[in-house]
Amino acid sequence: MSPAPLARSVNASADTSKTVLLTGFDAFDGASVNSSWLAVSALHGRTIDGCEIVAARLPTTFANSIEELARLLVLHQPTLIICTGQAGNRSAISIERIAININDARIPDNLGAQPVDQPVMEGGNAAYFASLPIKSMLLKLQNAGLKAEISQTAGTFVCNHVFYGLMQMLKASAGAGHAVELQIRRGGFIHLPCLPGQGEPYMTLSNLVSALEICVSSALLDSCDIAYGAGHIS
Amino acid sequence: MSPAPLARSVNASADTSKTVLLTGFDAFDGASVNSSWLAVSALHGRTIDGCEIVAARLPTTFANSIEELARLLVLHQPTLIICTGQAGNRSAISIERIAININDARIPDNLGAQPVDQPVMEGGNAAYFASLPIKSMLLKLQNAGLKAEISQTAGTFVCNHVFYGLMQMLKASAGAGHAVELQIRRGGFIHLPCLPGQGEPYMTLSNLVSALEICVSSALLDSCDIAYGAGHIS
Amino acid sequence: MSPAPLARSVNASADTSKTVLLTGFDAFDGASVNSSWLAVSALHGRTIDGCEIVAARLPTTFANSIEELARLLVLHQPTLIICTGQAGNRSAISIERIAININDARIPDNLGAQPVDQPVMEGGNAAYFASLPIKSMLLKLQNAGLKAEISQTAGTFVCNHVFYGLMQMLKASAGAGHAVELQIRRGGFIHLPCLPGQGEPYMTLSNLVSALEICVSSALLDSCDIAYGAGHIS
Amino acid sequence: MSPAPLARSVNASADTSKTVLLTGFDAFDGASVNSSWLAVSALHGRTIDGCEIVAARLPTTFANSIEELARLLVLHQPTLIICTGQAGNRSAISIERIAININDARIPDNLGAQPVDQPVMEGGNAAYFASLPIKSMLLKLQNAGLKAEISQTAGTFVCNHVFYGLMQMLKASAGAGHAVELQIRRGGFIHLPCLPGQGEPYMTLSNLVSALEICVSSALLDSCDIAYGAGHIS
Repeated sequence: MSPAPLARSVNASADTSKTVLLTGFDAFDGASVNSSWLAVSALHGRTIDGCEIVAARLPTTFANSIEELARLLVLHQPTLIICTGQAGNRSAISIERIAININDARIPDNLGAQPVDQPVMEGGNAAYFASLPIKSMLLKLQNAGLKAEISQTAGTFVCNHVFYGLMQMLKASAGAGHAVELQIRRGGFIHLPCLPGQGEPYMTLSNLVSALEICVSSALLDSCDIAYGAGHIS
Repeated sequence: MSPAPLARSVNASADTSKTVLLTGFDAFDGASVNSSWLAVSALHGRTIDGCEIVAARLPTTFANSIEELARLLVLHQPTLIICTGQAGNRSAISIERIAININDARIPDNLGAQPVDQPVMEGGNAAYFASLPIKSMLLKLQNAGLKAEISQTAGTFVCNHVFYGLMQMLKASAGAGHAVELQIRRGGFIHLPCLPGQGEPYMTLSNLVSALEICVSSALLDSCDIAYGAGHIS
Repeated sequence: MSPAPLARSVNASADTSKTVLLTGFDAFDGASVNSSWLAVSALHGRTIDGCEIVAARLPTTFANSIEELARLLVLHQPTLIICTGQAGNRSAISIERIAININDARIPDNLGAQPVDQPVMEGGNAAYFASLPIKSMLLKLQNAGLKAEISQTAGTFVCNHVFYGLMQMLKASAGAGHAVELQIRRGGFIHLPCLPGQGEPYMTLSNLVSALEICVSSALLDSCDIAYGAGHIS
Repeated sequence: MSPAPLARSVNASADTSKTVLLTGFDAFDGASVNSSWLAVSALHGRTIDGCEIVAARLPTTFANSIEELARLLVLHQPTLIICTGQAGNRSAISIERIAININDARIPDNLGAQPVDQPVMEGGNAAYFASLPIKSMLLKLQNAGLKAEISQTAGTFVCNHVFYGLMQMLKASAGAGHAVELQIRRGGFIHLPCLPGQGEPYMTLSNLVSALEICVSSALLDSCDIAYGAGHIS
């Protein structure tokens, strides 16, 4: 059993002309706020490792979210894109490993659409792995005392929809590992817990912001990922 | 406004020469039994919708499980293959939607191997959808009073490993939906809860067996899947 | 052993330009109301899976009912048509399987006509199967806790008359199964129980409306039917 | 509304060389007897209107029943064929109007087969009307004090299966009315109640036999059917 060597994507080295795009979503399902938008907007205009952070809010709709993301990619030409969403049921920073080509909505989106078993993209690949150093990000978050995990599913609602759309646009390899043969720009998705006041479980805004800073920095600086077990048995 | 012509809804008239292969795993992680093997072996030799059930036990090893499954496929030429595994953390029959090309083991397998972020198959597709009518199976299970769910992740241990290997061998389309363009034979994976005595949560053996009977029958008879929302938001 | 390739399971993505026509009948046999019209009219103007519901009332007459239905088909060009009628003797939502080419009236219709053993259409096929996923509709109704059944006869009064006329206009195949080789648009017939106050047995209006919502959604989204035993011995 | 004239099939006038075939079924669903076989066998060898009665027992199996009936048609060349079956839920002599091209078995047949939504004949007509003077038979039964009715459905089990097979073999017209354009020989199906001792409802053997005598005589002598309302509203 000889683990195959991964192609290492070299990246980073600070370049002040570079932009990092962070997206959050608007509130959905009757809520008044969305922790993902509050977290990324707190970083808007900041500079991390020489790159300027641009925060943008995506609509929680199947019809418009990928289109809005596409518009932002053209506008900002970001070197790194991390989309985030709120996961009401999770207590940890959840770094998503893979986006799948399915929409299966348990509730209506913000336009009332509720697709069942529709592909995100007709005829598209079954899935795309994130092209981020997810294990490095995980280890650094845990080392900073932040509760974090790798997630094997981003669900089948608008978060996964946007994540799949992002990776398809980035032409990430459909190959074996994450961060393999990344050809253009890095991207991925992180699910964030709710904020205090939104119900249990929750994480404070300052912790969410710190987590994103760590993740962005890792994605900019770590040229390849590390081996660090974080799977699930089932 | 011209809706596409529909395919035949009638399928699979009984053919006594057909075989259904059900697999379970041997015990792992120090346990003495595995609910998946006890459930499928209870069906060995039975006939469902004119097809004979062959139950087989796979080793809980990254090195040998897919090879053993390949041997069984050649030996039995089954028209339908459903692999099952025990999910210690789940209380419902979990019909898996998708297998992903990653091994990331939190514990050693039965040969002591513990791969981290290795592809199941170097250069393989990122994922394969099960080629089973998963929503029809779900609805029929629920209608029979059995607790059931669609799962978006089969984990990153030997269960997902075998599931990915199965779908790769069946040459399932990497396309958008499940049960799409299935070219040869149907296959997929179901996670089963533990049995009484193995800890909480659990399900009785007779319920596990009933659930498998329902799933096999649906997979044999339902020519395509129905629309029935069963996704996750995150 | 080469099982035939399966058709796509994904169907009917929402298209706001599509219309669903639901018909009920006016009151007959001296009654003041008809549960079928009250049920479908409650859905008029609603949107289900992106399709607008148009409810229309048909006269309980052999002479005018099919003509009025034909006018509605031309006017609305519906993608799906479900005609409904009141069945005073039934306690369950009765999804009709087949329309037969006979009028045999036990009572006069609303114009006093009482044909005996006259064909609906001279020289027409003996019968047409509904082109709806009747078993999927049944299972979903039962799963929602609504009493439902497949009916093998829509009687020989105006309900069957309209049902036969509908299927003849839709040019449904006279072949073996329902939903087979449907060439243009889907259609069928559902008998509804009476409402409270009309005598026993009855079902509440909200349950009738819920049942129709489930049936319409299934007919729009389920690309073919499932196998689910619901026949009668005699 | 001008009822179209029916083509009148002329038949009968006693001819001692003619044979009438009556079939019943063997016991099924764990029962020890079948009222249909006891009734027809009581008439075996008798002569009615100059025709000899041949009674034969068909197996209650989807696989063999039509084949056995075909063998009997070739062997006896009957001028009239009436198949009968036991209807446990019916209290009246039920003259069946129409056979439909579907098998949907709620219980296994005597070989364990339980088809769901399979056509009786792949690609066959949706239905065939009986080619018997059903209303004349009905009126004569009622006039003799026997409880009788027209049934619009013979179910979806082996009775309907045999009935469809019979009518297909007789090349009955798929046209509008019963007894129309009968080209070769008359045939149809009658459901009989249970006998005393088999549970409620029931009818005595002598009444079942009398009913069959009346029906056979009518089918041999009445050159065309009468108009006699006996439909159902739903």
